[in-house]
Amino acid sequence: MYKRILIANRGEIALRIIRACKELGIETVCVYSTADRGAQYLDLADEAYCIGPPKGMQSYLKIDQIISAAEVGNVEAIHPGYGFLAENSHFNEVCRSCKIDFIGPTPEAMDSLGDKNRARDMARAAKVPVVPGSAGLIEDEEEAVRTAREIGFPVLIKATAGGGGKGMRVAGNELALKTALQQAKAEAQAAFGNGGVYLEKFIERPRHVEVQMIADHHGNVVHLYERECSTQRRHQKLIEESPAPRLPAERREAMCQAAVRLLKQAGYTNAGTVEFIVDQENNFYFIEVNARIQVEHPVTEMVTGVDLIKTQIMVAAGEKLPFTQEDIKPRGAAIECRINAENPDKGFQPCPGLIKQMYIPGGLGVRFDSHAHAGYSVPPYYDSMIGKLIVHKPTREEAIACMIRALDELRVEGIKTTAPFHKKVLSHAVFVDGMVDTGFVERVLLAGDHS
Amino acid sequence: MYKRILIANRGEIALRIIRACKELGIETVCVYSTADRGAQYLDLADEAYCIGPPKGMQSYLKIDQIISAAEVGNVEAIHPGYGFLAENSHFNEVCRSCKIDFIGPTPEAMDSLGDKNRARDMARAAKVPVVPGSAGLIEDEEEAVRTAREIGFPVLIKATAGGGGKGMRVAGNELALKTALQQAKAEAQAAFGNGGVYLEKFIERPRHVEVQMIADHHGNVVHLYERECSTQRRHQKLIEESPAPRLPAERREAMCQAAVRLLKQAGYTNAGTVEFIVDQENNFYFIEVNARIQVEHPVTEMVTGVDLIKTQIMVAAGEKLPFTQEDIKPRGAAIECRINAENPDKGFQPCPGLIKQMYIPGGLGVRFDSHAHAGYSVPPYYDSMIGKLIVHKPTREEAIACMIRALDELRVEGIKTTAPFHKKVLSHAVFVDGMVDTGFVERVLLAGDHS
Repeated sequence: MYKRILIANRGEIALRIIRACKELGIETVCVYSTADRGAQYLDLADEAYCIGPPKGMQSYLKIDQIISAAEVGNVEAIHPGYGFLAENSHFNEVCRSCKIDFIGPTPEAMDSLGDKNRARDMARAAKVPVVPGSAGLIEDEEEAVRTAREIGFPVLIKATAGGGGKGMRVAGNELALKTALQQAKAEAQAAFGNGGVYLEKFIERPRHVEVQMIADHHGNVVHLYERECSTQRRHQKLIEESPAPRLPAERREAMCQAAVRLLKQAGYTNAGTVEFIVDQENNFYFIEVNARIQVEHPVTEMVTGVDLIKTQIMVAAGEKLPFTQEDIKPRGAAIECRINAENPDKGFQPCPGLIKQMYIPGGLGVRFDSHAHAGYSVPPYYDSMIGKLIVHKPTREEAIACMIRALDELRVEGIKTTAPFHKKVLSHAVFVDGMVDTGFVERVLLAGDHS
Repeated sequence: MYKRILIANRGEIALRIIRACKELGIETVCVYSTADRGAQYLDLADEAYCIGPPKGMQSYLKIDQIISAAEVGNVEAIHPGYGFLAENSHFNEVCRSCKIDFIGPTPEAMDSLGDKNRARDMARAAKVPVVPGSAGLIEDEEEAVRTAREIGFPVLIKATAGGGGKGMRVAGNELALKTALQQAKAEAQAAFGNGGVYLEKFIERPRHVEVQMIADHHGNVVHLYERECSTQRRHQKLIEESPAPRLPAERREAMCQAAVRLLKQAGYTNAGTVEFIVDQENNFYFIEVNARIQVEHPVTEMVTGVDLIKTQIMVAAGEKLPFTQEDIKPRGAAIECRINAENPDKGFQPCPGLIKQMYIPGGLGVRFDSHAHAGYSVPPYYDSMIGKLIVHKPTREEAIACMIRALDELRVEGIKTTAPFHKKVLSHAVFVDGMVDTGFVERVLLAGDHS
């Protein structure tokens, strides 16, 4: 097992990784930008190095600075968290060439699955259903129109690189398709430096369900069941839960097995998530693999009892998975709400600034993963998430009741948060009935909100 | 189910009960002394009434004031928490005469089990092993000496009323017995208004193991397995855990079944704890029943997934237990550390005062039940517990590692706490080996500390 690792991230996930390391008896080296200097979670690390000014490009994305810190800190491995360099295969390769373990998949697996188009090919080869669509990248308008006619309108244009809704457009007819194609290509080029796009059949009112995976270097690939993440705003997840409500047991099993086949096919190691969309008839289609730990991993930890970060570290160090598929017996229902420093009444405008006072919810089955506290100032430079509120109860009904009381208990004074918005979602009959699709929030809760 | 209940307590247990009520959709009425005016947890209640000045005798123990608040607040039931009026059968009877449900056992069950001597008789009748001792109360020196000769020295003198070590003395020979008897009687009379004492064989290096019970008004009595509470200082529990380390499965089962027999015999309802001492050969002997919810109940909640406070309320309202004995399948290991505002370097002297800053531990399997926060001032009038840190992990080894990192993470600035002392206990080989007996802390960790 490692003696010392570097955490190439910040905020709640840096704290999460410190916690796992401390429980494993591993020393931690943190890096921080000048905006995060003095943050409380850095006190819990064994060492911390400043790697640059606030902007991500000059600090948390600066590979040479991070590698220098790793060399000076004399670490054996780097945990990238999520975001920043977590899915950067170049960084992954640089780590390898410096003989530092990257806690995640190999650069090769990352490359082959990171390209959505190649990932779709691999899924087809592993007999994992994919959304009907173009065989590969769309070269020109003519090919787009021909393909759209084959699969039927409406169609979805997606960028082969990146995510977060960038380079994504829906088109209902040929004319709209031509315009949308140009827009999507331009947006993808600007955002990811790669204008490649492909076409998919647009699924009406889809649900987003993903399977948490973990694999070791000894050929063991285990799924940790699914998470439902359909409560989204502008393709950003707001609420995640497990198990997925209203997903028949046979569908769940088929989806989890499909995810196992795909990652075996890819020779994947460490933690990853296989994302699917599920249509109104519970048909599931592979979308993409997230080759990293995800924000919403605690939901799975609560229902399975498996510490995913600890397991990532153990697997990266060459250990065998400490459990088999049969050992994984999910229990109860877990829900996570992402608490963002945003004003839901003003189009979710970011609200950085000083937290004057903070009351943290607690009690049976309540977990709050957060680096924030009274006196903490949320910097304006990074994503606005200040914590993840997770609950775990015997039933989904109890979990919803518990989350509402926990959100009531959470008080963050000085800045606005998304907590009141979460209460609205959780109290809505559609959510209570487990009928949320990925368009629900914007179609129903934010109808007329174009801010 | 109730619409509205009153919480006749303060601090963390008042907050704990508010949480359970909110999840059940029940409104809460709190009472508070002037010392607790403005406490944050009172904001979470639907109503709150001031019932008097700081001292317990003038507020939280003042039955007429509490009943008045219940009448004004129009509640259907009262939850007494632990301490204060929780085991006061007179209060319990007053509630009944006012047609307010007391969330706990009946006054009759409380009376018959609250008297330790009567409880021992009942245990014998239920074929539950008791420590060899006097048949009833000791009348005089002569009877004490005769009994002590029968059961063999050393012997333990115990007060039939009360607890917390008051009116308790060990005597190794006849001369010591005579002195100790007078002291114990006088101390018991002063503390509980009842000088009745009895004699027991003194068990060398005993462990304290207790069984959590819950029973409804339909004849269902279910045990929720055991807690080991041997880490004590001056008969005050410091650390509790479940399952009890090194207790053979057959002994555990026998002890749990004995607890079920006893409570069936007593016609007991609601939550209660059957306490045993366990000798070095794993023989167990009944000591007493705690006819209330206990401080350490979260340990059991974590391993069983049962919300004890919710279940207490449901049972008091006349509902059947929502589970059978077979449904209770404990999972993993849980440990609780009581975080007290005390200075372990100065004989555990209470340290009330202002908490200037506070960082609360979190993460997978960590629960902190506390009403304290940055800016909270610990009043000097009540017990010094400011929170309970509980962890739950797949194994005891992992739970210990997790508790140590959580204690590291807990920072309470402005006052001293027992957190550093807990780290010392948890790191000690005797604790790690699961070999702690009730004298361990004072014999080994505080040897020479007579402050």
